[in-house]
Amino acid sequence: MSYRKAGNYYAVLLAGGYGTRFWPLSRVLEPKQFLSLLNDKSLFEKTVLRVKKFIKPSNFYIVTSELYRFQVADLSAQFGIPQENIIFEPQGKNTAAPIAVASQIIYSKDPEAVLCVLPCDHRVENMDRFSRALNRALSVCGNSIAILGIPPLRPATGYGYIKAGTLMPSGVFKVDRFCEKPDHKRAEKFVKSKKYFWNSGIFVASAKVFLNEFKRSIPQLYRQVQRISTGKDIGLIWGKIKPVSFDYGILEKTKNIIMVKAGGIGWSDLGSWQAWDEILKKDHDGNLFQGDVVNLGSKNTTAIGNHRLLAAIGLNDLIVVDTPDAILITKKDKSEEVKKVVDLLICKRRKEHYEHTTVRRPWGSYLVLDSGKGFKVKLVTVSPGSSLSLQYHRKRSEHWVVVEGRAKIIKGSKIIELRANESTYVPVGCKHRLSNSGSNNLKLIEIQSGKFLGEEDIVRLKDNFGRIK
Amino acid sequence: MSYRKAGNYYAVLLAGGYGTRFWPLSRVLEPKQFLSLLNDKSLFEKTVLRVKKFIKPSNFYIVTSELYRFQVADLSAQFGIPQENIIFEPQGKNTAAPIAVASQIIYSKDPEAVLCVLPCDHRVENMDRFSRALNRALSVCGNSIAILGIPPLRPATGYGYIKAGTLMPSGVFKVDRFCEKPDHKRAEKFVKSKKYFWNSGIFVASAKVFLNEFKRSIPQLYRQVQRISTGKDIGLIWGKIKPVSFDYGILEKTKNIIMVKAGGIGWSDLGSWQAWDEILKKDHDGNLFQGDVVNLGSKNTTAIGNHRLLAAIGLNDLIVVDTPDAILITKKDKSEEVKKVVDLLICKRRKEHYEHTTVRRPWGSYLVLDSGKGFKVKLVTVSPGSSLSLQYHRKRSEHWVVVEGRAKIIKGSKIIELRANESTYVPVGCKHRLSNSGSNNLKLIEIQSGKFLGEEDIVRLKDNFGRIK
Repeated sequence: MSYRKAGNYYAVLLAGGYGTRFWPLSRVLEPKQFLSLLNDKSLFEKTVLRVKKFIKPSNFYIVTSELYRFQVADLSAQFGIPQENIIFEPQGKNTAAPIAVASQIIYSKDPEAVLCVLPCDHRVENMDRFSRALNRALSVCGNSIAILGIPPLRPATGYGYIKAGTLMPSGVFKVDRFCEKPDHKRAEKFVKSKKYFWNSGIFVASAKVFLNEFKRSIPQLYRQVQRISTGKDIGLIWGKIKPVSFDYGILEKTKNIIMVKAGGIGWSDLGSWQAWDEILKKDHDGNLFQGDVVNLGSKNTTAIGNHRLLAAIGLNDLIVVDTPDAILITKKDKSEEVKKVVDLLICKRRKEHYEHTTVRRPWGSYLVLDSGKGFKVKLVTVSPGSSLSLQYHRKRSEHWVVVEGRAKIIKGSKIIELRANESTYVPVGCKHRLSNSGSNNLKLIEIQSGKFLGEEDIVRLKDNFGRIK
Repeated sequence: MSYRKAGNYYAVLLAGGYGTRFWPLSRVLEPKQFLSLLNDKSLFEKTVLRVKKFIKPSNFYIVTSELYRFQVADLSAQFGIPQENIIFEPQGKNTAAPIAVASQIIYSKDPEAVLCVLPCDHRVENMDRFSRALNRALSVCGNSIAILGIPPLRPATGYGYIKAGTLMPSGVFKVDRFCEKPDHKRAEKFVKSKKYFWNSGIFVASAKVFLNEFKRSIPQLYRQVQRISTGKDIGLIWGKIKPVSFDYGILEKTKNIIMVKAGGIGWSDLGSWQAWDEILKKDHDGNLFQGDVVNLGSKNTTAIGNHRLLAAIGLNDLIVVDTPDAILITKKDKSEEVKKVVDLLICKRRKEHYEHTTVRRPWGSYLVLDSGKGFKVKLVTVSPGSSLSLQYHRKRSEHWVVVEGRAKIIKGSKIIELRANESTYVPVGCKHRLSNSGSNNLKLIEIQSGKFLGEEDIVRLKDNFGRIK
């Protein structure tokens, strides 16, 4: 099937979530939308692929967090999405603000623009049916907001519902009202009545319609976004924006909304480990094991292992997710409570919710192998052709031993080249820059010594990634 | 209470087990008897302390595996047990052989010797009652073997049983017969009848009686042990000894055995995680958590964490044991199956059943932090005053960076001293020796480079621990 890529069709991808309900695999610095679960493409990539047949890459806009600058830049480049179409939110402000900002920026450029607003962390299984539903929404939205409504497959309590009203001649429904997540009894009634649909969070409307709705329902936000016309200006207005959800701020307050029924598209918001687990294929005992797992007699158990050996004996209805610094073991029907664990970690100012032990950097990654009083040992991996910043440290010295690949190192006024089994020493205060001068990954062991060994102690003098403020 | 430390009382500690049922905390190189569970003294130490009031340190004999040479030497020294009293089995040969060998060695020295044979991996809670029972056995054993029989507290299927016969005037029982581990129904009958007792594996008899019993029931073993008189000679006979258990080889074949009832001593053979779990104090939800555990709503769950964060949500009746390279999650009543996991690891020639990531050495320990193609990174910890062997490697070079303490290093013909933030390089083939010249632990990061990085590539020239063959 092929669709017309109308020049005024735009995609607005919402990719700023922290994905806390997928902890410990999801971390603030590497959230759900960028994860490759079960060795598949990331949810972000899949979202792009899903709408690419309607919309040309230059018409994709991505609203994301400042934190994901490098991930999103890499992924967007891969699809030919222009870097200036990425809008970085300085902080999270819920969903109304990013949609308003994107509508304004796109409207400034193309007053006839029609926008598909898509969350980037959902699943859609049936691409054909999804395409048909989205195409429908694009055709019929006119002067309204069109929302995809999913016929409910079970009385889910984790989703918001749309109550469909009159069926119109065009085959779409007027929306009667929106309902927040119901309790189980109410959800059962919803499903039975056949009048309620899951709220997919996928909206289609012209930029003009979106802006008109903001003007009517959240006039303050409307006035704020009027001040900008590109993503670069966001800093001017962002601080004063009040966080509010698009559902609460707009959907629940307008009558100008229609619903396109999107049946059989295999949609899930993957809002919990259990929701994710439900869509996975299991063996005849209901188990799914990934990684280094030894099982004896477990049933209905999903275990996502890691390098570490995981021995499961006689388990039932559990989800186990192992990462190098944290392991989650949860009864399937309690998996939503992961959010409480994350809240606790935030509260205790820990780091297990924030980053993985392997921390990605635009030039590669590092992994802390060990640390103790006055020392820290890292495995530093630099991608071919990449360089860290030219920098120095005020408080620490560094021993470097190359174990794989080729390094070019600026050290004070010298330039040296190192290969595996060669080493150098960078004393406190010495300007240095590490580059990968080979065609494979460069790996080196860095042993830091000093009284303060935080990441904050980097004074950058030159940087290829715009990290000097 | 004080007891007479008769000069002819001897303790024979059986300390050669691999403790596989306590995996992953127990490993072949660090088995159950040497573990400090819940920050307590090790089971080995507790066994010594339990009989120390009857028996002087010079009368303790320990039969253990060659693998535990250094652990046992350290622990024995701490109690003043002479090093020559430690008998090292070149391989495990079940329980008859070590008892026969110890009986022979002690009999050679003291023909009047009375031996208490004690497993080192059991628990006894009530020291007073245990002392009374053991004292009783020492008084009454005469020309028989006395065994401590434990009044059963429940129909345990994991223990062997003793059927008590006639009650003798001395207040002890003739033994009618021994029964192997029964099924549940049979165990229930045993408990109800009040005639059956748990077989504690704790025996008291004179060396002469033991030897006579061996002569009668396992004459081949008797003849073999006649050839030796000290532990050093064990190598002469060990290879040809047939493995057989003391229970099967002797107990089930002799009538010359009496039972001392040892009520209320709080005995357990700690034969599984469940058995261990049963004796632990729990909170009001039946939980016990050690380490970095976050719990939300779990019940009857025991989790022994490690450095890694462990989040438990809504669990029931589980035991979780986390170690750096392996995690066990087992339903409590299936915990015996750990043995099958270990069998599988042996079969697959893995190492997670054999050693921990931190490997103890007589001079300290090492921990592999990372490894990859052609490199391995270790944290090496050397105890104050200790030295590794004078050695060289045929296949690998080593970079050393000291991160804590003081190192004295022999490198070729030079001697160098290093402190934190100082490094050196030891090329392939270069003779070297690392010593801790400070009064605290020495810690250094060792980065090995080479095509072969196995522990086998150590050519030892001098060693303080007798490791040159």
